[in-house]
Amino acid sequence: MERLQASASGDTVLPSYDDVVAASARLADVAVRTPLLSSPLVDERLGGRLLVKAEPLQRTGSFKFRGAWNRISLIPAGARGRGVIAFSSGNHGQGVAAAARLAGVPAVILMPSDAPAIKLAFTRAQGAEVITYDRAGDRAGESRDAIAARLAAERGLILVPPYDDAGVVAGQGTVGKEIAEQAAALGAVLDAVLVCTGGGGLVAGCALALEALSPGTAVYSVEPEGFDDHRRSLESGARCGNAVGAATICDALLSPMPGELTFAVNRPRLAGGLAVDDAQVRAAMAVAFSHYKLVVEPGGAVALAAVLSGAYDCRGKTVAVVASGGNVDPALFAAAIGGSPAISS
Amino acid sequence: MERLQASASGDTVLPSYDDVVAASARLADVAVRTPLLSSPLVDERLGGRLLVKAEPLQRTGSFKFRGAWNRISLIPAGARGRGVIAFSSGNHGQGVAAAARLAGVPAVILMPSDAPAIKLAFTRAQGAEVITYDRAGDRAGESRDAIAARLAAERGLILVPPYDDAGVVAGQGTVGKEIAEQAAALGAVLDAVLVCTGGGGLVAGCALALEALSPGTAVYSVEPEGFDDHRRSLESGARCGNAVGAATICDALLSPMPGELTFAVNRPRLAGGLAVDDAQVRAAMAVAFSHYKLVVEPGGAVALAAVLSGAYDCRGKTVAVVASGGNVDPALFAAAIGGSPAISS
Repeated sequence: MERLQASASGDTVLPSYDDVVAASARLADVAVRTPLLSSPLVDERLGGRLLVKAEPLQRTGSFKFRGAWNRISLIPAGARGRGVIAFSSGNHGQGVAAAARLAGVPAVILMPSDAPAIKLAFTRAQGAEVITYDRAGDRAGESRDAIAARLAAERGLILVPPYDDAGVVAGQGTVGKEIAEQAAALGAVLDAVLVCTGGGGLVAGCALALEALSPGTAVYSVEPEGFDDHRRSLESGARCGNAVGAATICDALLSPMPGELTFAVNRPRLAGGLAVDDAQVRAAMAVAFSHYKLVVEPGGAVALAAVLSGAYDCRGKTVAVVASGGNVDPALFAAAIGGSPAISS
Repeated sequence: MERLQASASGDTVLPSYDDVVAASARLADVAVRTPLLSSPLVDERLGGRLLVKAEPLQRTGSFKFRGAWNRISLIPAGARGRGVIAFSSGNHGQGVAAAARLAGVPAVILMPSDAPAIKLAFTRAQGAEVITYDRAGDRAGESRDAIAARLAAERGLILVPPYDDAGVVAGQGTVGKEIAEQAAALGAVLDAVLVCTGGGGLVAGCALALEALSPGTAVYSVEPEGFDDHRRSLESGARCGNAVGAATICDALLSPMPGELTFAVNRPRLAGGLAVDDAQVRAAMAVAFSHYKLVVEPGGAVALAAVLSGAYDCRGKTVAVVASGGNVDPALFAAAIGGSPAISS
């Protein structure tokens, strides 16, 4: 736990590649070493070599299980009985619920009452206690943060943050470590790795791993247009938030601004940030369906979309993208792949 | 090639587990060792342990690449320039086209002119010469078999059969070999393996591998109702065909009766045959979408459907099913997962 606390000087201790290695050992027996997929037909069309890290095949359908398991593993044995709490309308909640159950730790997941029914049901199915709150509470009543703080105080629950935490970042970094190892096994030298980015935990962990294992590889964040806070923050050198009122189908990537800890990791390490629009995301989901046979949710498809749309030009290059999750509503998926009459006609 | 010829006594030489091992070595550098997926939530619902072999993630989106590559590898170097021919409206054609291209062997794929446009396009994209024929030709003109025979004679092309061939069966058997190895690595003892079955090549190869590596495991064929020729042939002990006029969405599993060679392998080895209806297949495709994040075509989902529907009762057991392919039309997939208004409303 020492690494997760502020140092004596008051500075936050940042995660390192050593933490990623330690996380990898903790995850070895419980997480899926997801495959790195390829398609000769897509590569031919692109004029480059594209490798797709298939995190929808991870436990709970996204990479979030990795960080959750690593963070919960860092709780001292004597404190685990207190239980953990997380707030999430989606993948982080499922990841924490599944990791807690596997670790034998009670979990409370705070979810908006209007979260998709399937996500509420899946989170409950993982054995977590789901507490719902009214999203309007931020104005009309008790806010999410206030509820979480009250529950944590009342019950002694330990918060598992979605991204701004060294243990969580180290866990997500195992994605980057595996990409480097799997690419090397294929004899592929990675020019770049593109990572779907919300709060920045996944890309931060990947950047730590690739810096150590494949230092010549450029790492990019990819975000939905209108939520490109990392792109703008990396350009300006300081964290900035998103304008109010933007909308996207990428429900997993709605963080308001880069995390403090994650940006401290990302700022000196990322080559830059990219952004894609919803139409490009849908097209990427359709290609994942037809060529990789993989179910990818909108927020999990932005890195693939950046390559397919040409936002990142991969001609003559070898590039890995993280497909970060696959928890998507059937109707939205059907529309994206062109199977719905509303889209295909 | 010796093994593919009739023996001196005139009997066909059947493939053995040694042939599967040899195929496995030939495929090591070119095929995907597809993952064996699991879902704690599905297992909990079933009261058993279910492992899903994800062949949609194979090259060309189905297991067919394995048999095609192995069969083409058995052609002596001096004869490869002649090229190969295959007839198929779907997965076998794509598998042969991709394997031939990778081996530097010319390929002709004979396809019905009314095959789905996407399958015609994908097969052409693999670099094969696609020749279309009129399905009505069986009555009104030159039949598929006659066209293939004429082309083979005119050009000296070597036929790669879809299933009734020792080299093809041995290649498909690598699926069973991997299942046995991957299950053992998980510490899982397989009570049964269920395999999607058309002509019987995949299940025959899997039965050879499991007999050698996991002799206590029962192997079952699974077919669509109305095309359950294996089930009935296994019960009666002799090959019998399907009644005319049946229909199913499982376009990959429309073989008229068990192959002669495959049935000689399967008859003494399979524990029995199972069948599922189209509604059970659609439900299995939806579960593969939501819980395994895998795109599975109808014919590739029958084994999963047998477990989920209870046609095979897996309570208290550990069972592997082969998800054999993922080449499916978006509209059909959307309807199966409940994303189409036509189904969900």
